[in-house]
Amino acid sequence: MAITLVVNPGSSSKKYALYEGDRAIHSWRFERTGHGFESCVQIAGGQQTCNALPADDFTHAADTVAKTVRSWSIEETKVVSAVVVRVVAPGTFFQQHQPITDAFIRALRSREVTAPLHIPMMVREIESLRVAFPHIPLIAASDSAFHSTLPPVARTFSIHADTARELDIYRFGYHGLSVASVLRRVHSVTGQNPSRVIVCHIGSGCSVTAVLDGRSVDTTMGFAPGSGLIMGSRAGDIDTGALLALMRARALKPIDAERFLQQEGGLFGLARETDIRILLDRAAASEPSASDALAHFSYIIKQAIARMIVPLGGLDALVLTATAVERSAVLRTHILTRMESFGIIVQAERNDALVGKDGVISAKQSPVKVAVIRTDEMGYMAHVAQQLLTNEAKVVS
Amino acid sequence: MAITLVVNPGSSSKKYALYEGDRAIHSWRFERTGHGFESCVQIAGGQQTCNALPADDFTHAADTVAKTVRSWSIEETKVVSAVVVRVVAPGTFFQQHQPITDAFIRALRSREVTAPLHIPMMVREIESLRVAFPHIPLIAASDSAFHSTLPPVARTFSIHADTARELDIYRFGYHGLSVASVLRRVHSVTGQNPSRVIVCHIGSGCSVTAVLDGRSVDTTMGFAPGSGLIMGSRAGDIDTGALLALMRARALKPIDAERFLQQEGGLFGLARETDIRILLDRAAASEPSASDALAHFSYIIKQAIARMIVPLGGLDALVLTATAVERSAVLRTHILTRMESFGIIVQAERNDALVGKDGVISAKQSPVKVAVIRTDEMGYMAHVAQQLLTNEAKVVS
Repeated sequence: MAITLVVNPGSSSKKYALYEGDRAIHSWRFERTGHGFESCVQIAGGQQTCNALPADDFTHAADTVAKTVRSWSIEETKVVSAVVVRVVAPGTFFQQHQPITDAFIRALRSREVTAPLHIPMMVREIESLRVAFPHIPLIAASDSAFHSTLPPVARTFSIHADTARELDIYRFGYHGLSVASVLRRVHSVTGQNPSRVIVCHIGSGCSVTAVLDGRSVDTTMGFAPGSGLIMGSRAGDIDTGALLALMRARALKPIDAERFLQQEGGLFGLARETDIRILLDRAAASEPSASDALAHFSYIIKQAIARMIVPLGGLDALVLTATAVERSAVLRTHILTRMESFGIIVQAERNDALVGKDGVISAKQSPVKVAVIRTDEMGYMAHVAQQLLTNEAKVVS
Repeated sequence: MAITLVVNPGSSSKKYALYEGDRAIHSWRFERTGHGFESCVQIAGGQQTCNALPADDFTHAADTVAKTVRSWSIEETKVVSAVVVRVVAPGTFFQQHQPITDAFIRALRSREVTAPLHIPMMVREIESLRVAFPHIPLIAASDSAFHSTLPPVARTFSIHADTARELDIYRFGYHGLSVASVLRRVHSVTGQNPSRVIVCHIGSGCSVTAVLDGRSVDTTMGFAPGSGLIMGSRAGDIDTGALLALMRARALKPIDAERFLQQEGGLFGLARETDIRILLDRAAASEPSASDALAHFSYIIKQAIARMIVPLGGLDALVLTATAVERSAVLRTHILTRMESFGIIVQAERNDALVGKDGVISAKQSPVKVAVIRTDEMGYMAHVAQQLLTNEAKVVS
């Protein structure tokens, strides 16, 4: 059976996994830690084993993976038939899943100015993968493709329309792979096929998306993935007047402002910590900066849920996904408490009992079904790659 | 009886009015028009008379007003006892009504960098008033004082806390004078004293404020008055990543970016028109850019109403105020349609019948009472001045 290598590159972690259909059979994780780097390997359902890593190996993670894969190539069943990589880049061109060609890489490079902290890293990873897997189709799984259905009221920013068109400045949205992955499992978790759904992706990145009959109709992330909600170290949306005043007062260039917002903002900016688990512990120990940061974080998410009800005209189901809310019942309580006026009523026992697995946490009488569904970006990317190759094969034949 | 001169300075219009208690007895309006300038005068309930004006007279509007007032000074009843001017400036210091002293003017000048398109004009006006009315107490009516009650979750931006503190970057909010002025009349218009109220100020500037038991708990405008909702020519909140990408692509300095957002954004940016009445006409004539701009405008306001329900934990009354919604039943319909899931149900006949006056437009069965109440910033400023002088007199005596 065909094997797909799924690649999810980030600046502080890179994940690789081999999928046989929908099943992950081998996965690697390379991660910056407090002290340096580590790599972890897991084989189909087994225990994960981790090792410290020389810094250099983080850069060459793709090679390491390729070597392992090549060492298996004598076993015919384990030949990789496609490599698919998650692409996060502002631009209408990037709002679709597509084969990675030279033209694609040129387009990506031409957008470096829009995400200077992110795109160069992605280009390096793609080039490493092309070298490491030279004769295998390389596919871009777009993190914004799912939001290509946004209606004009949500896609448009209220800036000069000609400039928006010339510079391709629109709400592209991200976390699309995650949102699409959890939507596939709403029926199996809730037993229903709700029409009006809000998906909250709350991990180190955060977003809230409104989904009407399976299609994204609005989302909090805008042009760049640092926008929308407050996140681990990203400020999300703040007053542009405040940003310009700051740039003037501190004589910041756009790249400095970008760093200030992306790397020193969010929960880190408010409480010197990006890890929500640690913040929850600090808040439990009554530390004010941690409590205040979590209160602000939850407040902003609540407000985003409220405003996403507008394009839906009501709400049938609310889905929470990604690590922070999958792991912590306390965080879920922070976010969902005092939301009765929107029809959201959580049952405390159900919520407390659910850790790291899928399930429904709303009360029986809750007008809105609330479910926790684990994100599966990597599995969804394997699916995207297989679909794309099947369609291409059909077109060719 | 004591007379208060109320001054509302703007870059394209300046309003002056003499108040005897709560009653306007004489008012002036100086306005930039398509061709030049005009000045209009209205005497207590009479017809307004307008004349074209040399450009220079717009700058010296305060002198013109002072000359008229001085020509009356033989009549003892018409001696001005206080001059009060609306102040719109970012800063904790400016979040209170206060006498204008040299220190106040220095503080205002020191914040020029935060609102370079706005503060210099205000300083010039204040200095003209000091010259024109040399021995009369001059008072600042703060447009953000009403929002000084915002709780930390709403007041805080998710940026580095030390920087926010050093540069005094918080959500100050504006339109506070307008919001406070309509709250005073909610009971007389609705016959109720609702606890949870949302006030939508929709004029050439726009904002939505959540009011709990008379106190502001959140508002859409943030640090600077160009933030929050889309407005006539102001973009409101847009993705900071998009703004930085634009600044890089076009090599814009902060002041250029400010102009781009404040003067070429909003409805003007989307459809080349700041006047909502004209846009409504164009939309009625099926012109797509006008329809799209109005749809976006209404959508953003709807979403703001939805998110303001969060701090209130529900909604009892929604108040619409300021010229655009006072005048146009069609615009109100755009904004309030499809809001049933938030308990907002408008009765079409009531809405259509109400033009330029106060009234309730919600249906009998609407869980949320919806009222239109004309803004009275100037009257409220007279009230602020009288209160402040009375209190000072008490402190002194």
